[in-house]
Amino acid sequence: MQVVVLGTGNVAYALGRAAQAAGHQVVQVYGRHLAAAAPLAAELHCTATDQLTQLYTNASIYLLAVSDNAIPLLAANLPQVEGIVAHTAGAVPVQVLEVATTRYGVLYPLQSLRKEKQDYASIPLLVDGSDAGTKSILVGFAQSISKLVAEADDAYRLKLHTAAVVASNFTNHLYALTEAFCQNEAVNFQLLSPLIEETAFRLRQFHPANVQTGPAIRGDEATIYRHLQVLNNHPQLQYLYQILTQSIQTMNHER
Amino acid sequence: MQVVVLGTGNVAYALGRAAQAAGHQVVQVYGRHLAAAAPLAAELHCTATDQLTQLYTNASIYLLAVSDNAIPLLAANLPQVEGIVAHTAGAVPVQVLEVATTRYGVLYPLQSLRKEKQDYASIPLLVDGSDAGTKSILVGFAQSISKLVAEADDAYRLKLHTAAVVASNFTNHLYALTEAFCQNEAVNFQLLSPLIEETAFRLRQFHPANVQTGPAIRGDEATIYRHLQVLNNHPQLQYLYQILTQSIQTMNHER
Repeated sequence: MQVVVLGTGNVAYALGRAAQAAGHQVVQVYGRHLAAAAPLAAELHCTATDQLTQLYTNASIYLLAVSDNAIPLLAANLPQVEGIVAHTAGAVPVQVLEVATTRYGVLYPLQSLRKEKQDYASIPLLVDGSDAGTKSILVGFAQSISKLVAEADDAYRLKLHTAAVVASNFTNHLYALTEAFCQNEAVNFQLLSPLIEETAFRLRQFHPANVQTGPAIRGDEATIYRHLQVLNNHPQLQYLYQILTQSIQTMNHER
Repeated sequence: MQVVVLGTGNVAYALGRAAQAAGHQVVQVYGRHLAAAAPLAAELHCTATDQLTQLYTNASIYLLAVSDNAIPLLAANLPQVEGIVAHTAGAVPVQVLEVATTRYGVLYPLQSLRKEKQDYASIPLLVDGSDAGTKSILVGFAQSISKLVAEADDAYRLKLHTAAVVASNFTNHLYALTEAFCQNEAVNFQLLSPLIEETAFRLRQFHPANVQTGPAIRGDEATIYRHLQVLNNHPQLQYLYQILTQSIQTMNHER
């Protein structure tokens, strides 16, 4: 299929490359600034533009890989195109695209994407479409890119997006606070890498609630007290330590 | 070296197996209950006992792989032994062992250990000893087991133990809450696995503070509001969502 990529961020890079790698042809990259669109276009051997009036109108799929806030205005300003218009956002309803065309949908990659290359085939893609035919085309396109494709309407996608914030953004924040603590206390943060990876990887085998360990679930108040003392110069982390310890104990009592 | 393992939990299994695999000889497993000690002893082809008076006294290393609270009493009740006595706890001072012998230390595995087999060579081992000679023997023993060995006194070990609780126990709790949310909302939690693993694995390349994404750091109040609505029937997770969103924004403003 011929694909036009609109956007120059991480999602645009990932989906553009993944489409090309799957044998599709990315024919054009649009960006608000030509300088931002040009590198991705060069990598994908296609043209770049910063003018919506210059957009090719006969591609099969138009991927709006731009920030959530930018989707409505971009959709409103699209020229009339033949292909399907799809956005890539978890928390944006599919219908914001109906201003652009009658055939629209969503292709939401449930992964933290970077400009650096990643294993695109293992990125879950959640697909929706304005009608059965459109959805079927987008599902086929998604399946050509990824092994993990699921259909997801607005409500399901929003739930997964919420879950992703908790399981990824919030855990990453805990990693960031831990690294800052380690740097301040001259402790080698890298020593924690095997533990962090194991904690994530064992989810393939175990339910997290069944492998919860640590002083909170043991009710080991002496260790909790020692840890809170260690965190005396780190009030933000000390506060979260208390909140999350309580939360573990609450969940444990309710099981 | 000849090793006696005291304890029958996950740490006892892991260190007993790892020692054997490294060419050491586990000669005895002690447990408060013979029925608990026997399976590990059988696996390691050695004797089991539930009587401290029956302990072999001429092994090189005695590993006290028991719960934090049990260490002082076990140390006080040990018979006089020739070898080094070492506990395996992150948050327990090394000196609690001086009641048992003059040569004592710590061998703290900074990993979430299970009874199932794991890659023991990649478990960081943090070592301390009552004197230079003892420490040197324990470091050598640790290096025969693991590629990742570091010396760590009480204060350093306690800091790492605190960091481990945040980076592992607390993140696991977020996974557990997310899975409970997904189960309640009929969302497939497994779709989040690639994202969770990527979030942990990218720490090899990136500082977590530099790859923080999501609505909190973007100040995307519209998405935060939508997520909080999705969490209306999950007050515990809704509360943590607010606390952690605030915490991300606080950290971001202070950078």
